[in-house]
Amino acid sequence: MTAPTLLQQLSSDDRWTSSVIRDLLVHARQPGVLSLAGGLPAVELLPSSAARSPPIDCSRSEVAWHCNTASRAASPSCGSCCSRDAPDVDRILVTAGSQQALDLVTRLAASPTETSTVVIEDPGYIGASQVFRSHGHQLVGIGVDADGLRVDELADHLAAGLRPRLCYVNPTFQNPTGATLSAERAQRLVELAETYDFLVVADDPYVELALDDRPAATPLPESPQVIRLGSMSKTLSPGLRIGWIDADPRLVAQLALVKQAADLHTSTFNQLLVADVMSDSTWWSAHLDGLRNGYRQRRAALRSAVDRHLPNAQVTPQGGGFFLWCDLGVDVDTLLPAALDHGVAFVPGAAFAIDQPANTSIRLSYSSGDQTQYDEAVRRLAAALAATTS
Amino acid sequence: MTAPTLLQQLSSDDRWTSSVIRDLLVHARQPGVLSLAGGLPAVELLPSSAARSPPIDCSRSEVAWHCNTASRAASPSCGSCCSRDAPDVDRILVTAGSQQALDLVTRLAASPTETSTVVIEDPGYIGASQVFRSHGHQLVGIGVDADGLRVDELADHLAAGLRPRLCYVNPTFQNPTGATLSAERAQRLVELAETYDFLVVADDPYVELALDDRPAATPLPESPQVIRLGSMSKTLSPGLRIGWIDADPRLVAQLALVKQAADLHTSTFNQLLVADVMSDSTWWSAHLDGLRNGYRQRRAALRSAVDRHLPNAQVTPQGGGFFLWCDLGVDVDTLLPAALDHGVAFVPGAAFAIDQPANTSIRLSYSSGDQTQYDEAVRRLAAALAATTS
Repeated sequence: MTAPTLLQQLSSDDRWTSSVIRDLLVHARQPGVLSLAGGLPAVELLPSSAARSPPIDCSRSEVAWHCNTASRAASPSCGSCCSRDAPDVDRILVTAGSQQALDLVTRLAASPTETSTVVIEDPGYIGASQVFRSHGHQLVGIGVDADGLRVDELADHLAAGLRPRLCYVNPTFQNPTGATLSAERAQRLVELAETYDFLVVADDPYVELALDDRPAATPLPESPQVIRLGSMSKTLSPGLRIGWIDADPRLVAQLALVKQAADLHTSTFNQLLVADVMSDSTWWSAHLDGLRNGYRQRRAALRSAVDRHLPNAQVTPQGGGFFLWCDLGVDVDTLLPAALDHGVAFVPGAAFAIDQPANTSIRLSYSSGDQTQYDEAVRRLAAALAATTS
Repeated sequence: MTAPTLLQQLSSDDRWTSSVIRDLLVHARQPGVLSLAGGLPAVELLPSSAARSPPIDCSRSEVAWHCNTASRAASPSCGSCCSRDAPDVDRILVTAGSQQALDLVTRLAASPTETSTVVIEDPGYIGASQVFRSHGHQLVGIGVDADGLRVDELADHLAAGLRPRLCYVNPTFQNPTGATLSAERAQRLVELAETYDFLVVADDPYVELALDDRPAATPLPESPQVIRLGSMSKTLSPGLRIGWIDADPRLVAQLALVKQAADLHTSTFNQLLVADVMSDSTWWSAHLDGLRNGYRQRRAALRSAVDRHLPNAQVTPQGGGFFLWCDLGVDVDTLLPAALDHGVAFVPGAAFAIDQPANTSIRLSYSSGDQTQYDEAVRRLAAALAATTS
């Protein structure tokens, strides 16, 4: 047998793995399959060109149509627009969605000489664990409950000698559990980061989607150890690929260089388009209210379907975002193929597991799919569950 | 002295260096400085929203405003549009400009276990050498003459034991020399790639900008060892960040996974916008003719200024693109500060050097700046040269 060619080697390099969810979505798109699997926003809740105000002003966007050499926010207004609570442009780097923000932070944090460790919520966001692994970081999963990351568990690991470079969290409406980090834990997490010298990467794509009357989540305390990531993908458009990093200016200056190697800069056209759309704060605010109303109805529809057809499911309490995390109390390893046979798709908890098994849990999404079909979708899921556990 | 914190370490990590050119452009933007340093397209030659036909159709682009989970070309029409000679969408991955294309190829080619070697033209494109270095590849520079990469020199190195993973070339109107790879050398290069099992990365952003009556460059022969990179940044808009990879489908499938980790996918909005603009082939063709006419005039203006004020300069013969590569015959290490004092900016050859010194050469760009000022700009440069060599 001859040695594999470089092309064969590179084609079979298993550092690069597809998202389980993305592969699953191929099945979820088969005719007749109702999907509770996706994590994309509900199309009908996003602005269309007809409904949106102000319209795209091409003569203004023309600046972007031309040239831009800046990796940083195209204009102070865009930077402050993306992250309205942090108008200091030296703290902001606009990125191609928050996935790129995460990739850039991960590249910067990767040690060229030794394996570095990243702490991540367990279960945790698949797009994050993928990117950490692809850069050679070792993952340590720390449990999540209804108050978010088990910071006490992390403190125990740190006391026992764990020395991570990064700790990745979704502070608000975590993917997949929907849990929000409590103010007390957030405070303690930042203290630990300062004591043990690691950086907290707070990725907050769902923060605008608080669906209950409770106040929105408490942000993490200010600290040079905190890197915040944000995204327009859930509130405005995933197709525009606009996200941002909000961090200590010294880190942002380095991240701008990493970004320069990665893709020079984020589309100025899209940056200015977002700034245009958000410049009408009355419209933007009304749009966000509309989004929240829409997701509130969708969540209620899914929750009532779960209560009706899966009465034994334990649903993690959540205040918004896109997901219900349901512990079915039985091993669901073989549920997915049965569910697809019954015409419904979901994501098994195991797909989000880092170190701790999540084999009895499933993630159901109310962000996409037809909400009038949720009842039927969960009925099919319950039938599949009965078939696999009988 | 206490150990540096992680933030201090990451902030001073010298793997991430700014482009010399980008830093230089800060000086070049001082009032009164005429710049021959930039590499961006001439703004007035790119379509404005007023002059462009067809206009952006928001109702069509609305698809993109919504959601897309595909890393691959948003639609076959967009893929084939970007790379009209290769309508096989399995060969195409649309990227955030060709810089990202290069970054993805480099990430895929980086060996996790050993230092890998990349061959690059010497002098070569700074954005490429930066990205290779940032991923830990070792660079080997191979000389360039008026027929492009010295493939004979590469063959000698290979015969002597060099085993690169990648060989990076600008086949047409190379940055910085303007040289085009001859058909004979292209053929030989691909044979070497097949014999020694390396991949040729053919980055061709200037290929549409042939300014002489000679036929356009011969493309590299078809081979699974060839990865072609393309860009809309020189012909349509750098601000849209649309480029592409055209390669063996097995590599493209892997590169799509690397891209998924990097930023999920390229803005669908921008992909469809480009497809819209290019769908009118009569208009597109007339636009390219207009671009070429504009650059032909600009090149003539710069060339005549060089002939007048720097009569001893040896200009590498070129057939298009953006640059004149001038060997001044004397060491120009101290010319740049003097030139800035005299009110003119350029890029020293040394900035592009890999292994071989380029201390007597400079790169002058006719792609930006006011062409009516070229004569004055080169007059100032000659005055600065006289002041530093007297």
